[in-house]
Amino acid sequence: MGRVTEARRITTVRIREGRLYAGRKGDHVVVEEPLDIRLDGAPLSMTMRTPGHDVELVHGFLHAEGYIASREDLEQARYCDGAVVEDESGLPRNTYNVMDATTRVAPRRPITIKNVVTSSACGVCGTASIDEVRTAGRYALAAEWTVAPELLLDVQRRFDAEQGVFARTGGSHGAALVRHDGEILVQREDVGRHNAVDKVIGWALLEDRLPLSDCFLLVSSRASFEIAQKAYAAGIPMLVCVSAASSLAIGTAESVGMTLVGFLRGREDGDGRMNVYTHPERLDLSGAA
Amino acid sequence: MGRVTEARRITTVRIREGRLYAGRKGDHVVVEEPLDIRLDGAPLSMTMRTPGHDVELVHGFLHAEGYIASREDLEQARYCDGAVVEDESGLPRNTYNVMDATTRVAPRRPITIKNVVTSSACGVCGTASIDEVRTAGRYALAAEWTVAPELLLDVQRRFDAEQGVFARTGGSHGAALVRHDGEILVQREDVGRHNAVDKVIGWALLEDRLPLSDCFLLVSSRASFEIAQKAYAAGIPMLVCVSAASSLAIGTAESVGMTLVGFLRGREDGDGRMNVYTHPERLDLSGAA
Repeated sequence: MGRVTEARRITTVRIREGRLYAGRKGDHVVVEEPLDIRLDGAPLSMTMRTPGHDVELVHGFLHAEGYIASREDLEQARYCDGAVVEDESGLPRNTYNVMDATTRVAPRRPITIKNVVTSSACGVCGTASIDEVRTAGRYALAAEWTVAPELLLDVQRRFDAEQGVFARTGGSHGAALVRHDGEILVQREDVGRHNAVDKVIGWALLEDRLPLSDCFLLVSSRASFEIAQKAYAAGIPMLVCVSAASSLAIGTAESVGMTLVGFLRGREDGDGRMNVYTHPERLDLSGAA
Repeated sequence: MGRVTEARRITTVRIREGRLYAGRKGDHVVVEEPLDIRLDGAPLSMTMRTPGHDVELVHGFLHAEGYIASREDLEQARYCDGAVVEDESGLPRNTYNVMDATTRVAPRRPITIKNVVTSSACGVCGTASIDEVRTAGRYALAAEWTVAPELLLDVQRRFDAEQGVFARTGGSHGAALVRHDGEILVQREDVGRHNAVDKVIGWALLEDRLPLSDCFLLVSSRASFEIAQKAYAAGIPMLVCVSAASSLAIGTAESVGMTLVGFLRGREDGDGRMNVYTHPERLDLSGAA
């Protein structure tokens, strides 16, 4: 695709010891482009995403929303041939911003809280949202393994080193599926953190790896309800985030039996810290002083 | 509301000089709750937000989506009386998570790219998104004032000092409307950065202050297409963000005549830096070395 970052000329402004300096320089910014997802010919969703791994994104999105349960449920997902604009010289050019997904059977009913709310009366609240997520889940979360905190810090260092778009632009989020022995199976970056998660889970769906009971999900961002929901839908028993967790992410994780780790912060020398919000039994703390 | 943060017991894990420490302590997390927005009795949107300033949020959201142009367009916006759940003791309790908005006249057609895409054929791309935003704009952006970079750094310090939810939780985003002389008119925090922006613009709409031609919008987060779109819809000629800007935010700002400043980073001693992506003419760089 090659469209994940874009070169720009910018004005830099600096104040040093009270003196003002201004200049021009080249810079790189993360690309954000609309992706129009169509299901069986009808418009379904528009997301602003960083181009690339769009087939994975569509699979992960449709899975999280409950339209598909496995890759067999989709006949195909491909760029729309008719998504054409004129380029600078007036020639037709595919935007690669419209994906057509075709189901093999009639699509399942969407299961997300958004759709539930639309059809319900009043009374939406956090607890009801959590109940809906739990009811819609296909997989019970396994509790068959533990990880050492040191492993999480080590994985984070390797994860950070692979965040190439972030290194160039400072404007992307990352997500990775990590086996509990520390192997990073897949890692993706996107301007939207939910897209990055859809891309890694979509990858796993295409690899027939669901439920992801032997993995944890590492995200460079905060953990919100939506991220916890996507992880649970894929059978992931542990969610690890570099920043804060929201009340509803914590409530969801607690309710479905998911371990939620936040503020994972490591240093080069191996020291570091983290907060465990729910189900700490998947962390091996036996060596703690 | 008093529901913006929530107390939790968490497990803390620390590794120091290679030794593992674990403990339990109290912590605060940012509250995330669904808000169901209904327009003239029909479900319109569900957003995950931090409770509080919901009337402002609904006004700002409906404005950004193009349903209303001024506060007169809404007859009222109030919590749904029927949004009731049972509390722990079985008593009915309003969730304050459903808002009914009633238009005075028939609601305007939504103008956002999402709705446009749904009704169009193929061909969605960044350029088309920008064109739609520009076409839908009600206000030309004024270029009647400049600000000194030192003022932006000073505003950021005062803004940071007022980010109370972030200070407690590390999990919220902030937005503020700032007059070009440096006065912060309104500042809001929310688990969603788009909500924080809707809340401050909704405040201004209720105060009959649109177009906000004498203000800039300061956000604690990144600048995406959506944030640039909301700012433009409110007639704000300058968007300042603490983190990165996406390609489509930059393209939008460039196209509509908006100054976009990113990576605003100040220090206690007054030194600092920023990147100006578009229309640097609103920054007073006359004193630059």
